[in-house]
Order: sequence, then C-alpha cells, then structure tokens
Amino acid sequence: MNEIDRLIGDLVIANRILAKEEIVDAYGHISFRNPQNPNHYFLARSLAPELIEREDIVEHDLESNPVRDEKRPLYLERFIHGAIYEARPDVMAVVHAHAEDVLPFGIADGTPLRPVVHSGSFIGAHIPVWDIADHFGDTNLLVSNHEHGRDLAKCLGDNNVALMRGHGFTASGRSIIEIVRMSVYLPRNARALWHAKALGGDIKYLSQGEIAARNKGYSPYSPETWRAWEYWANKCGCGHMVTKPEPEKK
Amino acid sequence: MNEIDRLIGDLVIANRILAKEEIVDAYGHISFRNPQNPNHYFLARSLAPELIEREDIVEHDLESNPVRDEKRPLYLERFIHGAIYEARPDVMAVVHAHAEDVLPFGIADGTPLRPVVHSGSFIGAHIPVWDIADHFGDTNLLVSNHEHGRDLAKCLGDNNVALMRGHGFTASGRSIIEIVRMSVYLPRNARALWHAKALGGDIKYLSQGEIAARNKGYSPYSPETWRAWEYWANKCGCGHMVTKPEPEKK
Amino acid sequence: MNEIDRLIGDLVIANRILAKEEIVDAYGHISFRNPQNPNHYFLARSLAPELIEREDIVEHDLESNPVRDEKRPLYLERFIHGAIYEARPDVMAVVHAHAEDVLPFGIADGTPLRPVVHSGSFIGAHIPVWDIADHFGDTNLLVSNHEHGRDLAKCLGDNNVALMRGHGFTASGRSIIEIVRMSVYLPRNARALWHAKALGGDIKYLSQGEIAARNKGYSPYSPETWRAWEYWANKCGCGHMVTKPEPEKK
Amino acid sequence: MNEIDRLIGDLVIANRILAKEEIVDAYGHISFRNPQNPNHYFLARSLAPELIEREDIVEHDLESNPVRDEKRPLYLERFIHGAIYEARPDVMAVVHAHAEDVLPFGIADGTPLRPVVHSGSFIGAHIPVWDIADHFGDTNLLVSNHEHGRDLAKCLGDNNVALMRGHGFTASGRSIIEIVRMSVYLPRNARALWHAKALGGDIKYLSQGEIAARNKGYSPYSPETWRAWEYWANKCGCGHMVTKPEPEKK
Repeated sequence: MNEIDRLIGDLVIANRILAKEEIVDAYGHISFRNPQNPNHYFLARSLAPELIEREDIVEHDLESNPVRDEKRPLYLERFIHGAIYEARPDVMAVVHAHAEDVLPFGIADGTPLRPVVHSGSFIGAHIPVWDIADHFGDTNLLVSNHEHGRDLAKCLGDNNVALMRGHGFTASGRSIIEIVRMSVYLPRNARALWHAKALGGDIKYLSQGEIAARNKGYSPYSPETWRAWEYWANKCGCGHMVTKPEPEKK
Repeated sequence: MNEIDRLIGDLVIANRILAKEEIVDAYGHISFRNPQNPNHYFLARSLAPELIEREDIVEHDLESNPVRDEKRPLYLERFIHGAIYEARPDVMAVVHAHAEDVLPFGIADGTPLRPVVHSGSFIGAHIPVWDIADHFGDTNLLVSNHEHGRDLAKCLGDNNVALMRGHGFTASGRSIIEIVRMSVYLPRNARALWHAKALGGDIKYLSQGEIAARNKGYSPYSPETWRAWEYWANKCGCGHMVTKPEPEKK
Repeated sequence: MNEIDRLIGDLVIANRILAKEEIVDAYGHISFRNPQNPNHYFLARSLAPELIEREDIVEHDLESNPVRDEKRPLYLERFIHGAIYEARPDVMAVVHAHAEDVLPFGIADGTPLRPVVHSGSFIGAHIPVWDIADHFGDTNLLVSNHEHGRDLAKCLGDNNVALMRGHGFTASGRSIIEIVRMSVYLPRNARALWHAKALGGDIKYLSQGEIAARNKGYSPYSPETWRAWEYWANKCGCGHMVTKPEPEKK
Repeated sequence: MNEIDRLIGDLVIANRILAKEEIVDAYGHISFRNPQNPNHYFLARSLAPELIEREDIVEHDLESNPVRDEKRPLYLERFIHGAIYEARPDVMAVVHAHAEDVLPFGIADGTPLRPVVHSGSFIGAHIPVWDIADHFGDTNLLVSNHEHGRDLAKCLGDNNVALMRGHGFTASGRSIIEIVRMSVYLPRNARALWHAKALGGDIKYLSQGEIAARNKGYSPYSPETWRAWEYWANKCGCGHMVTKPEPEKK
C-alpha cells in the first residue's frame, strides 16, 4: 500500500475514533497534509465523521478548493484546514471539533485552559482563544472563507490548539495519530481542571519543563502511542483496518 | 410517497432520535402541523417515543381532540401542541420534553438560559420560564387541558423555546428537523453555560447579531442540516428510513 | 398466572430495570410484600440484580428469615425490608440502593434533598437522613440485623424515602412499579437540585400542594405509569416479560 | 487448574473489568505477586487492557525485568509494581490507572480525598499525594525506572492508595479482587465527595472506626465480594471465565 493510501485509511479510522469518543458528532472534521505535495491536504466531503469511507476523502488545495472536479458538497469550514497548512509548514494534520467539555473555556474568561494532566500535555502550555467577532463582527460563527481561516491561523500562531469562542477548538500536529490523541485528551484535561478548581486550593499545572519533556519523548509509532491508536480503533470497530507503516518510518 | 406520509415517517425517526439522544425517556413528545390543513396536527398516541411506529401517529385538531374515532389513550399533555399551533401560525412542529440538563434553569433564577454556543443559537435570544402555578395554583404540573396550553403559548410568545418550571421545556419551529436539532443542542448549551459560570469571569453570550446571522442561514435541507439528521437517524437505527423530499422543496 | 407468580415476574423485571438505569450495580435490592400474607415478603437471594431470574426469589418473614429451607446465601441487608414491612402496613414494596448521585445529600448537610422536578414528586416533601452511627457507633455501615432495620424504619417514619449517611437510600411505596419509578427519578431530582444550586439565585421547590396533587393522581396501571414501565422493561431487554394484571385491578 | 493459571485468568478478567468500568483506557495496568515466589509478579506486556489475553501476561522480577526472554515491548511504568512489591510484603496485587475523576484531587490541594461512602472505605483513611517533581524535577511524569518506583512506594507507605499529581493513582491490596473493587469505587467516592462539597455545609467522612470495621469484615470470596466480581465479569463479557478457588481457600 502506498503512503497516501495508508494515510487515507488512517483518516477514515480517525474520523470513526473521534465520533466514538464524542469529540465530534455530525459536525467536526480532520485532515492530513499530502506528504508528497505540501500544497494539498485531504479532508472528507461534507458528511458525519462516523459515516465516512475512503471514497469520501477529497484532496484540497491550500485555499480549500478541491483539486479535482467535485460535485459533492464540501465542509463549510474547510478553510480552517487550508489556512493552517498555509501558515504552518510543520503541521501535518488538523482537527476542528465542538467537543462539549472544551466549550466553557472559550465562553468564560475566568480560568484559562492549560495542561493539568500528563495526557493533556500535548495541547501545549498556551492555548489562545480566538473570537471571530474581533475582526469580523456579527457572523454565524463559522470559518466560512479563507480570510476567516487566516485570522484563526494567526491567532493559533505556534501553538497546537486554539479555542474558538462559542464554537469549539482547532488542533494541529505532526501526524493524524498525534492530533487524535490531543483531541481525545483535551476534554479530559478540561474536566480535570474545572473539577480541580471546584475543589478549591492551589492548582498545580504541568510545568513548562514537564510539557517539554513529554513532547520530546513523543513518537507516533512508539509502543505507547501505538497502543492507544490500536485501542481506539478497536473500540470504534476499525481494528481490522489498522496498518503500521514500514519499520524505516520508525 | 405523499407529503403527509413522508412527514409521518420523519416523525417516527424524530421520536427515535430524541429517545437515543436522551432528550425524552418514557415521557416527552413531538408533533408536526398538517401542511394541508393548518387546523390539524399529528402526534403519537400515549407511548414511549422509542417504541413509536407509523401506526401510532394520530391526527388531532387544535383543541387537541383526535379527528377520528380513537380508542387508544392519548398523551395527557397533548394540549401543549394544540395551543401553540393555535397561537403561532408560523410554527410547523413542536417538542415537549424533560431533558434533564435543562431543568436547573427552570428551578433557579440566578442564571437565565441564553445561547452561548453556536449550535445553541436556534433556541433564540430570550427563553421565558413558564410557571403553571402563576395562574393555576397547585397542580400536578402537567399541561392537562387547553387552558393550560393557551397560558403556556402566551408565555412562549414569539420565542422558540419556553422552560417550564420544575417540569421541562417546549420548543417550536419551522420543521421537524429544526426542532429535533434545537432539542438536542438545548441541553448542550445549558451544560456549556453552567460550566462556564463555574469557571468564573465574564461570560460571552452569542450576540443578537450572531443569533440572527445563524437563523438567516438556516435551511432544513441544506447539506449541513441534512448531515446531522442523517447522522442522528443512523445512530438510533433509522438510517434506512431517511427520505429527502423532492428537489423543488429546496 | 396467579398474582404471586405475576409479581415475581415483575420483581425480576424491576431488578433488571434498576441495573440498566444504574440505580444498583452488584449491590442494592428490591422486594415486594406478599399480598396474600402480609407477614411475608419476596426478595432475591444474594445475587447482582442484573443476573436475577425467577428461581432466585426467596420468601422471607418480617424478621428477614427465609420461610423455607434455603441453602443459598441471602442479602446481608435484607433486614431493611423486613423492618419496613413490619413498621408500615401500607408499604407493599421496598428498594435499597446506592445510586451514586443521591449519595452527596447524605454526606453534606448544606442542602436538604427535596423535590424540584415533577417526576421527583413521589419521593415526598421530607426525606430524613439516617445515620447508623447515631445509635450504633462505629459499624461497617450495613443494616445487618433486625435492630438496625427497626432503627432505620423509625427514622423513615411516614415518609417514602430515607437517605442513609455514607451509604445510599431506601424507598418504600405502594407497588413495585411505583418504587422503581421513584428510584429512577430520585437521582435525577438530586442532580437537578445540585445544578440549580450552582446556578445561583432562589430555588423553587415543588409546593406541598403540588406534591399532594401529583400523588393523588397516581395509579400503577394508568397509561402514563404503564408507559414508563413498558419503556424501561424494553430498554433492559425484558419487554417480552411484561404482563398487565386483569382489568378489575384498574 | 493450578493456582498461577487461575490467577492469570483472574488477571485477564481484571483487565477487562477495569476497561469496561472506565478505570483504564489504553493506559493503566494491573498485576499480582507470584504466591509461589514473592520476588516475582505477573503483569501484561504493553497492550491496552481491553485487548489482553492469557498469552500477554509476563512474569517480572522485583526490579521489573522480565524473568524470561521477552521480545515484546513492556509497560514503561512497570516499575510501579516492582517497587511496591519490594517495599510491601503484604501486598499481593497492584493497580496503576488514570481514572479521570480521581485526577482533580491530585491537582488541587483544597480538599483531600478521603472515604465518604461505605464502598469507598477500602481506599483507607489517608491517601498521600505523590509528586514526581519533588525529587526528580521536570520529567515526563512517568514512573519510568526503579528509583521513581521506590520513591512512589515510599510515599505510599502503609496506605492502600496514593494519588500521583497530574497523572493518576496507584492502589495496592491483598488480592486482585480487592484492588479491582478499590479501583472501581475510588472514582465514585471522589465524585460523591466533590458533589457533597458543592452542596455546602459540613461533610461527614467515614470514621476511623467505620473504616476499620469494614476492613475487618472483608474477605475476597465472601458472597458479597464474589457477587461484585461475578457481576463485573459478566458485564465486560468474561462471565464464562470466572472460576472460584477450592473451598479450603475460604
């Protein structure tokens, strides 16, 4: 199987995992950058993640237009993906979702979302909150054109995750496996933080050094990372679709 | 398939969706107005929503009497539906439910329920709280006659949703698909708001302009709306029953 | 089918419902009084409610001894049932359970548990909290003899529900169907109350008159009550076991 | 079946129970000490608990090296197990997990975790919080060598459970069945406590005498303990694998 075909398979699995783990419902999407052509990325047509098959994956350019003739409707918010790939050459995969337990941190400004649990370290030390109203006034809150996307990408900056006020979050990372994991543990970290706050007293956040130490040790195909991917894939009924790249990939 | 038959099919799906999404349990109901006779509406006989089939749907008049001879027990609270269709010619579908996470906002008066997330925008900027005790004193809290229904409809006014103190909520809208969506995202918006409040600081609600912008863009058969309907129908085992109206419906 | 056989069938269904609705796990039990001999009641042998079959139901006397030779282990806390049937001739069914969301109200004394939602009205206006330590000092918290049971029954008094500090609750009522419903909606009422409290402002509890009005209208075989029984039975896989008594029962 | 074979079967069941009860996800592990050689323990190779079979169980020595040639990757944090067995001759089984609802108590210092419900009594009166940063500075938070493990074991002392700041918990006990139960009820006790705190007023913790009374009555094969084991095993699809030791075991 060639690399693109393998990654498309992973993208199908990733969609199903995010649905099963309730990061997405009918809304929310995940993409990966074409490793053979960094000006293109792959994202499903407009369809609920749980129902996505290989045939639903569409190649887009960085302005988020389909690169081939495409009659099927596309995601309204595909511009999130194009704009982040444009701004961040290091990013190979992007998720946008409305995971419910992340929402409060984009609505109230009293408690910034920061990593408090080790599994949440990959969201990074700083998580900016993007408010579409700041530059675009009253909208339907959707990132529905490339300008919106660029504004979000600018707010994201060099961070891994940006919250979107009243809407959801966008996460970016080095691989599909990394951002699936980030997306699954982001709401967990959010809940741990809000419950900790309710218990009172001082809160111990992960230190910068801890976040860096965890990040340094990360590899998408280490036994620990792979263990979770395999587990989540099995849980959402995609265990049989899991394929590991050749060893030289490390 | 004629229009009424198609809508009855949608009503069956809607009942199953609301059960699966835990908006209703054994209690709660959803109806649609007869598009060919605005003085009639369709609602199931007294049965748990999860168990409803086409044969269980009964045509009622606006005083909530069955229009044909009917021996099976009817919902005690069917008067909610008749009274709202009577008062609001624009309303084509009505839900009444006890979704748990909406209840606190009808019990405590410290934090009004308002949209804080984009998926909650359709509940509208203002959500009145109806207290049956205000005009009827000590009751069993049920809307068990047309007078109760009219009092609730008056409180609802031109809004989409009314909370019912110690009881639940009623939502009204332009189509079955619209009120299913409103009902599913109403508790999500409620939870996002209460958690945001617990995090402290200022809360950013959706602005009037944002609510209007979202409402303006709504269409029951747009790819985005349809995507959710299809997803929820699949999730509750009704994927095979989904039918889209002819294109001229838009 | 004779009445006892029918009630034993209902008790099996009730056990499965309570398990499915997460009112009980491996612990917790439900009994009914023998309508033909008020000095006896029926309760399962020591077994997780989800696994109970007709053959597991054992007839006990009011001191909670089995009335026939019985080699299988019995519930340690069966004394709850015997003592309440002894003290309360009107009670025909008893549940004891550890439903998680009821526990906080038996631990903290800041917010008494009272009905705030209509489905919670059957728990009654006053819910005493029994602390086994008050009369028995340091124990394993279990109601493990008839004296413990009598002390709990005394605390329960004429109420429907008593909380048990650091342990759970006991509910008593006029029929199996009534106490299943009471048990299912008790945690819901508890959650609605604690979330309402967190929202701030004044809390509107159900009035005495509302509780009385709802209680007056209750009938175990009304279409509304039956609808829920049928729904819960279906949900836990016991739909085929549901039987309605002959019409003269009303 | 010999004792080791039976315990390996129990360990497989325990892994599945912990996954089903959401104490572990892809991460977290459970071990037992070899009763025939107290310097060895059994723990799975690096694999998600839900997927573990008998063949995946590996015998380790107390420095957490595999005692036989082993090519499959091992858990990075196996040192938790070795170090506790080394320090505590009474401990026969160990769990390490990240159960979400325990995390807040390791992050905020305002409310110590202590037993408030009878099912939580086995966690013990005192639950120390271990912070890896105290002695090792900035790490990836994992117990990734024997020194880390020894430091954790020292903090655990004679207690049953230690929280690990920003990471999870470790529980130790007299049998697999005991620590599974402890692990399942630990998050329940945590939730009961945080909700009780939110309700306001004084909190009644279990007294020292109550904790002792419950501990005294514990037996891994009593009908009450066995009832839960059987229930959880059935629930996670392992009912057919349950075997009880010979009667002389008591």
